Amino acid sequence: MPIRSIAVGRHHEFTQPDTLKAGIAEFISTLIFVFAGSGSGMAFDKLTHGGGANPTGLVAAAIAHGFALFVAVSVGANISGGHVNPAVTFGAFVGGNISLIRGIVYVIAQLLGSTVACLLLNFVTGGLAVGAFGLSAGVGVSNALVFEIVMTFGLVYTVYATAIDPKKGELGTIAPIAIGFIVGANILAGGAFTGASMNPAVAFGPALVSWTWACHWIYWVGPLVGGGIAALVYELLFINQTHDHLPTSA
Amino acid sequence: MPIRSIAVGRHHEFTQPDTLKAGIAEFISTLIFVFAGSGSGMAFDKLTHGGGANPTGLVAAAIAHGFALFVAVSVGANISGGHVNPAVTFGAFVGGNISLIRGIVYVIAQLLGSTVACLLLNFVTGGLAVGAFGLSAGVGVSNALVFEIVMTFGLVYTVYATAIDPKKGELGTIAPIAIGFIVGANILAGGAFTGASMNPAVAFGPALVSWTWACHWIYWVGPLVGGGIAALVYELLFINQTHDHLPTSA
Amino acid sequence: MPIRSIAVGRHHEFTQPDTLKAGIAEFISTLIFVFAGSGSGMAFDKLTHGGGANPTGLVAAAIAHGFALFVAVSVGANISGGHVNPAVTFGAFVGGNISLIRGIVYVIAQLLGSTVACLLLNFVTGGLAVGAFGLSAGVGVSNALVFEIVMTFGLVYTVYATAIDPKKGELGTIAPIAIGFIVGANILAGGAFTGASMNPAVAFGPALVSWTWACHWIYWVGPLVGGGIAALVYELLFINQTHDHLPTSA
Amino acid sequence: MPIRSIAVGRHHEFTQPDTLKAGIAEFISTLIFVFAGSGSGMAFDKLTHGGGANPTGLVAAAIAHGFALFVAVSVGANISGGHVNPAVTFGAFVGGNISLIRGIVYVIAQLLGSTVACLLLNFVTGGLAVGAFGLSAGVGVSNALVFEIVMTFGLVYTVYATAIDPKKGELGTIAPIAIGFIVGANILAGGAFTGASMNPAVAFGPALVSWTWACHWIYWVGPLVGGGIAALVYELLFINQTHDHLPTSA
Repeated sequence: MPIRSIAVGRHHEFTQPDTLKAGIAEFISTLIFVFAGSGSGMAFDKLTHGGGANPTGLVAAAIAHGFALFVAVSVGANISGGHVNPAVTFGAFVGGNISLIRGIVYVIAQLLGSTVACLLLNFVTGGLAVGAFGLSAGVGVSNALVFEIVMTFGLVYTVYATAIDPKKGELGTIAPIAIGFIVGANILAGGAFTGASMNPAVAFGPALVSWTWACHWIYWVGPLVGGGIAALVYELLFINQTHDHLPTSA
Repeated sequence: MPIRSIAVGRHHEFTQPDTLKAGIAEFISTLIFVFAGSGSGMAFDKLTHGGGANPTGLVAAAIAHGFALFVAVSVGANISGGHVNPAVTFGAFVGGNISLIRGIVYVIAQLLGSTVACLLLNFVTGGLAVGAFGLSAGVGVSNALVFEIVMTFGLVYTVYATAIDPKKGELGTIAPIAIGFIVGANILAGGAFTGASMNPAVAFGPALVSWTWACHWIYWVGPLVGGGIAALVYELLFINQTHDHLPTSA
Repeated sequence: MPIRSIAVGRHHEFTQPDTLKAGIAEFISTLIFVFAGSGSGMAFDKLTHGGGANPTGLVAAAIAHGFALFVAVSVGANISGGHVNPAVTFGAFVGGNISLIRGIVYVIAQLLGSTVACLLLNFVTGGLAVGAFGLSAGVGVSNALVFEIVMTFGLVYTVYATAIDPKKGELGTIAPIAIGFIVGANILAGGAFTGASMNPAVAFGPALVSWTWACHWIYWVGPLVGGGIAALVYELLFINQTHDHLPTSA
Repeated sequence: MPIRSIAVGRHHEFTQPDTLKAGIAEFISTLIFVFAGSGSGMAFDKLTHGGGANPTGLVAAAIAHGFALFVAVSVGANISGGHVNPAVTFGAFVGGNISLIRGIVYVIAQLLGSTVACLLLNFVTGGLAVGAFGLSAGVGVSNALVFEIVMTFGLVYTVYATAIDPKKGELGTIAPIAIGFIVGANILAGGAFTGASMNPAVAFGPALVSWTWACHWIYWVGPLVGGGIAALVYELLFINQTHDHLPTSA
């Protein structure tokens, strides 16, 4: 998980083949993740004839997203760091672990990957609707916003502790599993309230393809705020603050 | 999993920045764990309209707690050892692997983390009750107590074998997964009888926020007894007893 | 995961004991995988009296195939590379990572392993039908074909990133888990539409034993196209292109 | 996973403290495994009021046994090798990887661990019956026997490939997960027919405590035959046959 290695060389990244390749890796990883994740929701709707959320559906969503995110992070790890999520990229930026230019390339690639996944899902299912994220009945905006903040805090804190922290040691081996499984666990809590996105790209593709933008801002503001707080907390408290000031080899 | 390294330096720990940072790490890890774990129970109640426990709910609880505890242990491993549980901290203390002062800091941090998680859950769900642990109908006090003792014995024995034992070798890489999954497995057995807490902090937060203290002592006595026995058994039988007497570098 | 090491020595492989042993390993791995995977579907049919797919059945299929494929890849990894899938073998061939002769031996072994698994399942279940793959009601041929292409692209891309890429590093340790879990995740999406085979051998055994060949070609063309594209994309973009031209020790 | 190291020193093992400690480790590991595994079945019966097997129950059993066996193997790995199963011990003996005396100590410890787990389950559940293994309606003896043979073949083959093979390399890190998950996967296939024991100790404890011996021999003969075949196949085909004849350091 060489996310930290991204921090090396902050200039001319946009024109470097490496940055473009990393963007392609983010595109493919996000496509794989959203295809399985959103596809599992569409399969549930098909099998239950749109009968609405139930505990088995939450379990299926948790396993599909947990397993697929673990894989998406793994396959991107050595090329782009396997962010697969604008909130993770933003968290990496807040902590000084990715440049602005490279971060923008990543986010564009993630949004494209999610959109292409949703277009593919729409085709392969013979035209079924790709369900957009939204609040369950009775869930208020401020509640949903804090829900997404707390859940994404846990996700990006996990990314920092297991993948970015230079002292991570052997934790790096299981980092992709941890990153995938915190999302799976949080879906079992938040899925019944906000859909438990924790990821603006995951919400963007379905919103664009189904053209459903109600409350869409929550799925940007919540994850970015939660991810940013996690980055600041982890970076300030637990990472040696000197790493940005010295030309250490890291 | 440098839990053993905690044993180094038993004096002045309370005032050391390292001890305070470890306490913060325990607070955050426990918050992440309880938020997903107790949150999954609240989501189940919401989706089933309080229809009561059923096998799907046990599966959801097992996955949520198993995955989230794996992550909580991982993200704390390099800072505090990732105890996330007063029974684990007590077991580490019984085996001489953490000082009394540092242990007290850990337990306070764990209780605070659980409480804040429950307060957050109460808010983000729009005021739903955070379910306190309690005995299922027909389950006696002595049965429940032994149930919690046996399950926590398995948990703390796992912590010792995979994370504390200096001879753990490559097992250390997968230690957080093992620690999370024994809790997931035990929930599938004990969840229908005692709730399968195995962790006083997990029981304390919901009890405090919902002010439900019936049988609460079981969720302290059971895990502490089970964790203490596991520590004694493992330390006396399988760990070289000389480590406390010699200034080894560990 | 020494899949790449297979590329060494492209002559006389058919007569080498090593190639034959690798073929036996592929046979056994595929047998273990298909026995648990297809067997879980037959158990579901038995318990529901053929009540048809539902979300719990998808979860069971995802776990059975995900867990069993992880194991099948693991147990073959050091002997044959643990392909267990003609689409993976074809992808390895397209990228120049296995010879034609050895690839043919692998595919024959995989087809035999799947067939023997289905014959065994037929016997041990007292003669229950081994369900062949087929399209769900309302799913068109072109939709199903693209579904299998996209899902197998994700699978073979995962094989390349975690097991074949010489720069995979510590990802190699968790490669079998990632390979198994992307199949588990994709089943939760595609299982309700095409059955989510992603593997011609997995489809071949049940088709042969139940003599059901309707749309069987989809389960060859889709996975081979998807696997081939993944191999080309990964090899051209992310693997140092010089490896085939220089006698590197790899 | 130092199972192979057990082969060192075949004399006086019964009187060695190391052999006795290994026996205690087997006892505790098996207790932890059976407590969660059989306990999950009793919880399912309680929640469904004995409503009989259904797919959710199979999923719960697969997760409980898969997770708990992974942990039981992990916690015993460095002390006894983490057999937790007379079929594994017999397979190790057939391949020359454990002595007769030490193997007998292991099997006795495993049977005791399973029995104590069942007695504890009987107490903590307030006297609920511990369900013994048996054939489902319509399943013949020869079918069940072959079912157990094939499933245990897969299990012991996995033990050999990931834990015993001296060339296992980094596979050793994830060996306990693979060993646990092949049992989880096989339960989803065989659980509806034979109960999917794959382990005489797992069947013995419930049979003794509930005094139900119908068809009990199947759960000894099937696993021992399957485990023995797996050991012979793997040892003869894939392990360097010279290891028993030369005093290699292994």
